Amino acid sequence: MAAAVAASQAALFKSPFQSLDSCDEQKSVKFRSTFHGSRRISKAAGWSRHLLARQQHRITCSVNAPSPAQAPPLPKGAECYGVFCVIYDLKEEEKPKSWKKKLVRVAVSGAAGTISNHLLFKIASGEVFGPDQPVALNLLGSERSKEALEGVAMELEDSLYPLLREVIIGIDPYEVFRDAEWALLIGAKPRGPGMERADLLDINGQIFAAQGRALNEVASSNVKVVVVGNPCNTNALICMKNAPRIPSKNFHALTRLDENRAKCQLALKAGVFYDNVSNVTIWGNHSTTQVPDFLNAKINGRPVKEVITDHKWLEEQFTPTVQTRGGVLIKKWGRSSAASTAVSIVDAMKSLVQPTPPGDWFSSGVYAAGNPYGIDGDLVFSLPCRSKGDGDYEIVPGLHIDKYLYERIKKSEDELIAERKCVAHLIGEENGFCDLPGGDTMLPGEQ
Amino acid sequence: MAAAVAASQAALFKSPFQSLDSCDEQKSVKFRSTFHGSRRISKAAGWSRHLLARQQHRITCSVNAPSPAQAPPLPKGAECYGVFCVIYDLKEEEKPKSWKKKLVRVAVSGAAGTISNHLLFKIASGEVFGPDQPVALNLLGSERSKEALEGVAMELEDSLYPLLREVIIGIDPYEVFRDAEWALLIGAKPRGPGMERADLLDINGQIFAAQGRALNEVASSNVKVVVVGNPCNTNALICMKNAPRIPSKNFHALTRLDENRAKCQLALKAGVFYDNVSNVTIWGNHSTTQVPDFLNAKINGRPVKEVITDHKWLEEQFTPTVQTRGGVLIKKWGRSSAASTAVSIVDAMKSLVQPTPPGDWFSSGVYAAGNPYGIDGDLVFSLPCRSKGDGDYEIVPGLHIDKYLYERIKKSEDELIAERKCVAHLIGEENGFCDLPGGDTMLPGEQ
Repeated sequence: MAAAVAASQAALFKSPFQSLDSCDEQKSVKFRSTFHGSRRISKAAGWSRHLLARQQHRITCSVNAPSPAQAPPLPKGAECYGVFCVIYDLKEEEKPKSWKKKLVRVAVSGAAGTISNHLLFKIASGEVFGPDQPVALNLLGSERSKEALEGVAMELEDSLYPLLREVIIGIDPYEVFRDAEWALLIGAKPRGPGMERADLLDINGQIFAAQGRALNEVASSNVKVVVVGNPCNTNALICMKNAPRIPSKNFHALTRLDENRAKCQLALKAGVFYDNVSNVTIWGNHSTTQVPDFLNAKINGRPVKEVITDHKWLEEQFTPTVQTRGGVLIKKWGRSSAASTAVSIVDAMKSLVQPTPPGDWFSSGVYAAGNPYGIDGDLVFSLPCRSKGDGDYEIVPGLHIDKYLYERIKKSEDELIAERKCVAHLIGEENGFCDLPGGDTMLPGEQ
Repeated sequence: MAAAVAASQAALFKSPFQSLDSCDEQKSVKFRSTFHGSRRISKAAGWSRHLLARQQHRITCSVNAPSPAQAPPLPKGAECYGVFCVIYDLKEEEKPKSWKKKLVRVAVSGAAGTISNHLLFKIASGEVFGPDQPVALNLLGSERSKEALEGVAMELEDSLYPLLREVIIGIDPYEVFRDAEWALLIGAKPRGPGMERADLLDINGQIFAAQGRALNEVASSNVKVVVVGNPCNTNALICMKNAPRIPSKNFHALTRLDENRAKCQLALKAGVFYDNVSNVTIWGNHSTTQVPDFLNAKINGRPVKEVITDHKWLEEQFTPTVQTRGGVLIKKWGRSSAASTAVSIVDAMKSLVQPTPPGDWFSSGVYAAGNPYGIDGDLVFSLPCRSKGDGDYEIVPGLHIDKYLYERIKKSEDELIAERKCVAHLIGEENGFCDLPGGDTMLPGEQ
């Protein structure tokens, strides 16, 4: 009952071209009379009511309504939700005079999942793009999560975030990714019981290949893509290879949570607060072969090895502590680290839209082409990066690589090369074969 | 293994009085040698390692260490966690020159729950108190949620929020609430199968009576208390009556989520964006007897009844839509509305620390003594409030109460009076008896 009420309410909206007062009642009546019939014939039954309502409305309020040419195109198979179907014109609005006049459109896959449940509210609150940047959220779910996605949209409605001006929900990436300037690819299949890493690579690889093709076709040509779903480096590579229209350097695999954890562990060991730790790199794959770099990291501007004199700890315990953090957390907390993962996604995005502090850098899994460290360029590899805050970045050169680091980075590189061979069929290459280096290198807490 | 490593790391900390370099190794060794023996004799076994480490450290680094008189007192049975055990002096720190020099200390009960899992990160990010206000979080869990609480603290560590300077975890409210300037009381027992509302009132009433006594004894004398755990109005009344040292007007029961939902529904119906809706009051109890007020509410500055001419909808469907929202959401989403509840707690807090926009108001369940609407003053009743942003508020007088509103407000008042009689034994009154008005008035999705 209440759901039906909400649905019928969602039919009402306002465009800057229309007079609300003259159309209000008509709209309501007209909508209700066509609602049930229309939804049955829609492709995505039950999801297109807002779309239909909006189309219907254009006819009803004909006096001041925009011509079809003027009306913003609405994708099929993806729809605005509830109050977010209200059309407005940021340029004409009185209220947010200091706001930027163009929305940032962020598409999120796995939008009904727990990481997104933290992340979406952060983006909506202005935490990523600032208090003057209105945002649109395009939420991608699956057939199975459709209802949950509506629940997420309802909670976003109830949060009354002024900056959140549009929410679109859908299950077709070709619709949901349309015009996205950011794509946060969080959704991935978790590994089932007895599933090998190779199987997971293939199953998720298929998803990211399809999403890459969709991004290639419908997203903004300069869309920034952050891949969170695991195995994220190789998923990002697959996605990138399937989206040739989008610059390769726009694809990122999230290693920021690893960086944040590494910073915290160094701070703990040194007995300082975490904001005194800088220049931490995660090299390589987001797996147990990842290399948290204490050689180039700094504490209060001094090399870590000068401040932390327990080098045995650095060499033997620091890395496993960072890597097993997720597993320890699951054990204590009973759930995976959704909240801090979401925080690290926000950090990763902010690192691209805010200038990197002078002398510092951040880690991101990026396409390694032309990297100054001799790493195979045809991989998505976590490297030290810095940004002017324009959404772009450069790989920071000149870090010191000693024998300890070199050996470990090489191992992570070998793993990523082996993963690439496993997914050759998904990146347009031939002669693929799957022979991953020994042992399971999934990070604990992510299986 | 990793947990043990983290624990031993947590022993190291730095005070502004000490030279890190000269003490680092000593601290580490000293701590490890005393760790296992000491924790066994501690009252809250396994929880006091940071406390012990801190005490130990004062002896070890004696040259520059503060005298016991200088050292900040650490409560027993509640402890700093991990990197948050680092002692620092905001006044002396170089970095945050523009920051306020005094922490805001926020205590949160039910800190390992899902609402807190959203809320804590918002507070830590500066969303409530602003980007220049460092914060401390004192997290209260239960015997059962101890480990989970450590998990929460770990995620807060990994989030590297610069403003979050202290995290204390514990299970004893007399320790965790110490010096709190805000107490967000979220933890409450959920209603089990077959449990009557009267049983729930008693079970949770006991908890809030105990927490009120603890606040009375150890919290800041001007602590602001926001009660979220249900039945929140009567829980807030119980808490207040058990904390006579704290001003009665400092106690709030959360009805902000109801207000937010009401605003959104009015926006949807009117076809406007939610930021055009103002002056929405929730009157009464946070239950199905609550009264979302469309009579005094405004859309674009005009009375709602002028803008929404479908008065039948306002009178018959608006209120149930607001009230059943949580239930609809659970059905769709499979979980309760933790994210938007956390948002509404943030809103409620911000409404007290930021001036209310001129002419507007917000809803909060407050002690009704001296209210200008003739409502029983000895209740915690949701009323229209406004604030100068100093943490305090006043009840807004002069709202128009018509027959429709009056009857409904009366019903909610009657319910709260009946609840008060049920909990007479918890608020120092005699002749209590429990005879709640007919029907179950728990909000759907909160049982």
